[in-house]
Amino acid sequence: MELFNYFRSSASYRVRIGLALKGLDYTYRPVHLAKGEQHGESYAAVSATRLVPLLVDGELRLHQSLAILEYLDETHPEPPLLPRDPAERARVRALAMDIACEIHSLNNTRVLRFLVKDLGLSDEDKLRWYRHWVESGLVTLDAQLAQAPARYACGDLPGLVDCVLVPQVFNAQRFDCRLDHVPQVMRVFDACMALPAFDKTQPKYCPDAE
Amino acid sequence: MELFNYFRSSASYRVRIGLALKGLDYTYRPVHLAKGEQHGESYAAVSATRLVPLLVDGELRLHQSLAILEYLDETHPEPPLLPRDPAERARVRALAMDIACEIHSLNNTRVLRFLVKDLGLSDEDKLRWYRHWVESGLVTLDAQLAQAPARYACGDLPGLVDCVLVPQVFNAQRFDCRLDHVPQVMRVFDACMALPAFDKTQPKYCPDAE
Repeated sequence: MELFNYFRSSASYRVRIGLALKGLDYTYRPVHLAKGEQHGESYAAVSATRLVPLLVDGELRLHQSLAILEYLDETHPEPPLLPRDPAERARVRALAMDIACEIHSLNNTRVLRFLVKDLGLSDEDKLRWYRHWVESGLVTLDAQLAQAPARYACGDLPGLVDCVLVPQVFNAQRFDCRLDHVPQVMRVFDACMALPAFDKTQPKYCPDAE
Repeated sequence: MELFNYFRSSASYRVRIGLALKGLDYTYRPVHLAKGEQHGESYAAVSATRLVPLLVDGELRLHQSLAILEYLDETHPEPPLLPRDPAERARVRALAMDIACEIHSLNNTRVLRFLVKDLGLSDEDKLRWYRHWVESGLVTLDAQLAQAPARYACGDLPGLVDCVLVPQVFNAQRFDCRLDHVPQVMRVFDACMALPAFDKTQPKYCPDAE
């Protein structure tokens, strides 16, 4: 398999964790988002959306990190990223989407660029926007984690929510967001970071890290 | 089952379509987002996130529309919303998330409110923001639909992507977005709207429609 990704991309990091949890090897293909490589012709030849991450598995080209993680879970079931029970699976997916849709989607590179370049927002207002969604979104997540505390986000093994939570905390730290108000999130983050699958795949260890 | 939702909420409409495709009965519970009812105590008692839609199924309370639709598909498999093959399932999920994460997340009510009330954007700039994500996001979707044209978004039966595509087109029309540049999207939209599951659940027929 090949993973087209960017060291700092939160969605890319999710998939790196998932691949590591499954013990799957892959070739790392860097796409430098800050330099705009995703808009170049060579990436257009493999990606219809110009987004990262993109997983190539034989003839298949898969995008959207959560869809990729579900695909990996269906094709390599052990260890599982999602529980078996439909109600528990729904809770896991909902928590993952609380981060992916309600926080991260609002704060990715192209969105921040549009706010500044096209709408003329100041850097200060851009940061206010960024922190608002991270800090309020993580409060909602924290409250839900507190309803069913476990070693990891949703049980005694790391899974889909952890793959999404850890990169979001990395982003929050990079933008100096408040995190002292979300103790459940940080407890899960620390538990995950003690595992090689989360630690060894973090941005600073990527081949394209700066 | 009970569905807490709002007639105009795109994510709510997705679930109404899914329930209708499955032929499932439910009690319609309106939550008036424009009046701020999601922040009231009565909704806080059932919803941890204060978002709609929320599906109540016995003891279960499920949020996030895509997680709800996957739950319905797992607990009521016929007719299926997702194909069986893992690669095809991944494509379906990715296209659904191309709308849910890359378009809709940026344009929901609370995001637009933050842009205007907290960041002081003009109504004109708010519209520019809205249309940018809709019009560019649908182009990406259109190109992907063109790669494997079918009666509906991903095959000869309506499924998950159609549940997300149709409400997004409704939103686009409400905000006068350009749609003449996405012929595949509009072809699928028209095919869906010929079906009662999409037509009868549309905003204007909801009990709380204005």
